[in-house]
Amino acid sequence: MNTLLYTLDGNHPLQQQLVQKLSVRPGRFDFHQFPDGETYLRVYDNCIDKQAIILCSLNQPNNKVMPLLILLNTLRQQGIKRVGLIAPYLAYMRQDKQFNSGEAVSSRYFAELLSNQFDWLVTVDPHLHRYHSLDEIYQLENRALFAAPVIAKWIIQNVSMPLLVGPDNESEQWVAKVAQLANAPYIILTKHRHGDRNVEVSVPEVQRWLQHTPVLVDDIISTGHTMQATIGHLLDKSMSAPVCIGTHGIFADNSYERLMASGAKEIVTSNSILHFSNQIDLSSLIAESVSGLI
Amino acid sequence: MNTLLYTLDGNHPLQQQLVQKLSVRPGRFDFHQFPDGETYLRVYDNCIDKQAIILCSLNQPNNKVMPLLILLNTLRQQGIKRVGLIAPYLAYMRQDKQFNSGEAVSSRYFAELLSNQFDWLVTVDPHLHRYHSLDEIYQLENRALFAAPVIAKWIIQNVSMPLLVGPDNESEQWVAKVAQLANAPYIILTKHRHGDRNVEVSVPEVQRWLQHTPVLVDDIISTGHTMQATIGHLLDKSMSAPVCIGTHGIFADNSYERLMASGAKEIVTSNSILHFSNQIDLSSLIAESVSGLI
Repeated sequence: MNTLLYTLDGNHPLQQQLVQKLSVRPGRFDFHQFPDGETYLRVYDNCIDKQAIILCSLNQPNNKVMPLLILLNTLRQQGIKRVGLIAPYLAYMRQDKQFNSGEAVSSRYFAELLSNQFDWLVTVDPHLHRYHSLDEIYQLENRALFAAPVIAKWIIQNVSMPLLVGPDNESEQWVAKVAQLANAPYIILTKHRHGDRNVEVSVPEVQRWLQHTPVLVDDIISTGHTMQATIGHLLDKSMSAPVCIGTHGIFADNSYERLMASGAKEIVTSNSILHFSNQIDLSSLIAESVSGLI
Repeated sequence: MNTLLYTLDGNHPLQQQLVQKLSVRPGRFDFHQFPDGETYLRVYDNCIDKQAIILCSLNQPNNKVMPLLILLNTLRQQGIKRVGLIAPYLAYMRQDKQFNSGEAVSSRYFAELLSNQFDWLVTVDPHLHRYHSLDEIYQLENRALFAAPVIAKWIIQNVSMPLLVGPDNESEQWVAKVAQLANAPYIILTKHRHGDRNVEVSVPEVQRWLQHTPVLVDDIISTGHTMQATIGHLLDKSMSAPVCIGTHGIFADNSYERLMASGAKEIVTSNSILHFSNQIDLSSLIAESVSGLI
């Protein structure tokens, strides 16, 4: 069965490589907004007896949902039998419980919306905080891929004497894994509370690491507040300017500029979301997984 | 059973009147966008054994869909049994067939999305062009209300010697109906084609109507191009500056300013979509219908 790959965010950096690595054809379509804000969309392919992949990173998700559902439904109407979604960045994973009564658990509603419409889903480093697996909320065939190996590979190739740094105990599992894969040491910052407002953050064995390049790794760089604070703590202790790595560079509230101004040596992201900081290519990771689904 | 009315577009002009006329309580909730573009929402009401109405006009629909679905799902999660939607303006009614192969018939997908989630739907003057009834695409209890009587009432009270004017034969049915209800005469402009590019538009019996105030009526004023052309034809024949009435004032592409600049005497809309041209109140019409559904 022939497979067509439709890229909803037009210039997505993964498009061309996925087309090559999966040996699929790029789907041809266009869409635009009518003056009244509705989406017009037209598919130009013969879809009979074909299957489709839609590639769309779901950062800034609200405005993408209607075009995404319209594309999906148009493909089905044109005869496509099976439609999968590659969302290198998956949205609405954070509101995973009611912190206060009456709060929306939007992760569940969003999961239901996509599950009802797509046949399969592939994503990278979804924000699985309280959920252990996408299967807890997504009722469709899915793959949650880990970027840690490709991040580790980038560190090995680009950072001399890397020292992975986790900002708190919660981050240890993830930081330890990247450190192991990069064959590098890691430390976790510790907080000492002196009274209500006085929290001291210390860097363990700081003298031992002064020659290393600190590397901060997170799944998402959104507002970047935690990373920004961590940079401050490291520089306070006279450590070198750290390299900041995020799988997904959301960069809300000008966080790229803020992190650089705070003393980051460099900020690096994967190409899950188009940004000039993209240095880590996810195409092989995604292609390998998707080839088992089409 | 108690009923709560949640207004998604915060300052919707119909909110207060519907709360009074339906004897319901306004629902209390807030929502905002996280820096990453996701919607946070929280409901503050005790929802057990209650039903809910969501009031939301669906102009500029794409950005409203996620907040709408999140509110609906949060209400259900909080125990609401039945949720209806009052969408004074209903979106995605125009793409009702494939004009070209491969085109999205978005009216069907949007109808399916809402039908799967809501228990009932009330709207005013939906753009039923090729569909004869909402039931052709909406699979839920629904009411498509006609604004013609309230528009006619406004004309009677505000326009001296009104003459309803339809821009083409397609408009005759609608124009004739408003004219009859307003107890006013109407004319339909006719086109005479002289060769490929030379189309003359004539006003029938123009001498007879020079003392009248032309009234142009349409369901939606979107880009307003047809209305703008009609104003031009009337002024060309030395008729008075026309009053332009639209049930729904979308006013895309600065059409309000363009229509006024083209010589409209006044532009009047219903309060389906908040705009300073709102002069026609739909609250009684809607309340009467909704009271049969709750």
